[in-house]
Amino acid sequence: MSQYGSAVEYALHCLLYLVGSDRDTARSTRDIAEFQELSTDYVAKLFTRLQKAGLVTAIEGARGGFHLARAADDISVLDVVDAVEGHKPLFECREVRAKCALFDDDPPAWSGRGVCGIHAVMLKAEAAMRESLGQSTLAQLAGHVGKVVPEAHQRAARTWFEERQATRGRRARKGS
Amino acid sequence: MSQYGSAVEYALHCLLYLVGSDRDTARSTRDIAEFQELSTDYVAKLFTRLQKAGLVTAIEGARGGFHLARAADDISVLDVVDAVEGHKPLFECREVRAKCALFDDDPPAWSGRGVCGIHAVMLKAEAAMRESLGQSTLAQLAGHVGKVVPEAHQRAARTWFEERQATRGRRARKGS
Repeated sequence: MSQYGSAVEYALHCLLYLVGSDRDTARSTRDIAEFQELSTDYVAKLFTRLQKAGLVTAIEGARGGFHLARAADDISVLDVVDAVEGHKPLFECREVRAKCALFDDDPPAWSGRGVCGIHAVMLKAEAAMRESLGQSTLAQLAGHVGKVVPEAHQRAARTWFEERQATRGRRARKGS
Repeated sequence: MSQYGSAVEYALHCLLYLVGSDRDTARSTRDIAEFQELSTDYVAKLFTRLQKAGLVTAIEGARGGFHLARAADDISVLDVVDAVEGHKPLFECREVRAKCALFDDDPPAWSGRGVCGIHAVMLKAEAAMRESLGQSTLAQLAGHVGKVVPEAHQRAARTWFEERQATRGRRARKGS
């Protein structure tokens, strides 16, 4: 298993659909799920974590949904990774150093003092990885998408979401 | 699951016992396993991978075992990680970008062109992590151990291994 997988990838994709939206154009998890051919439950779970981490804001009501809680250039990939995965360590130290045939099952105090040397090396590598993820923002990702996705598809996607939202709005008004 | 776990930790610990040893003082996997209270099979498997990666050299015979294939300052933590785990990616890209309600199960060529933007960010973070691991050497780890482990224990450990090896040498001579 890799450190990061589909949850991070889907969360970032989901958030990309919120870039540029505000409280009036919030996207519902149902629409986001359907647009990406994912289960609504799965996307809802991702958004629960993203909301808990303060990255998205929920808007109630028939035309409700989520919008970004702050500017896309103020949301790093690391923010999203931590929101979805928690602060998942790169290395799980089992404190192997406490085991030795000479210790007679009673490791001396010095064997567990301070951070294990191997763990320290891994923590440094993790810090380098996290620094790199912290330097990439959702705005940069959205910029990349803006360059590689044809304008016609971007327009079609916006229209798809707007029509969904409008339909729900009309249904809600009828029902009231 | 973290990216790296006990296999990397044990492999590094095992290699630390080889620092300073040469073909005349090769350590057997049985001794290394017993000293760390591990199964011999498990340690033998780790050494198969370490040998395949060119990090250790096997010496045949009753007093045989393994020694480092090159200087400890020429073996990085990254070398050991890759030997044990293979080149395990930090992020597994599922190519989520190919799924979209507007594609009708037939994603256009542009949707899969080049490296996915999210994957690119992850590859950059992985490179930063690998660079950091590549900068740490087995010699540095051994230096750290030399500082925190009391001289008396280091001496006792050396004696333990030497006595084991000598006993096996005597047994082999008696048997011949």
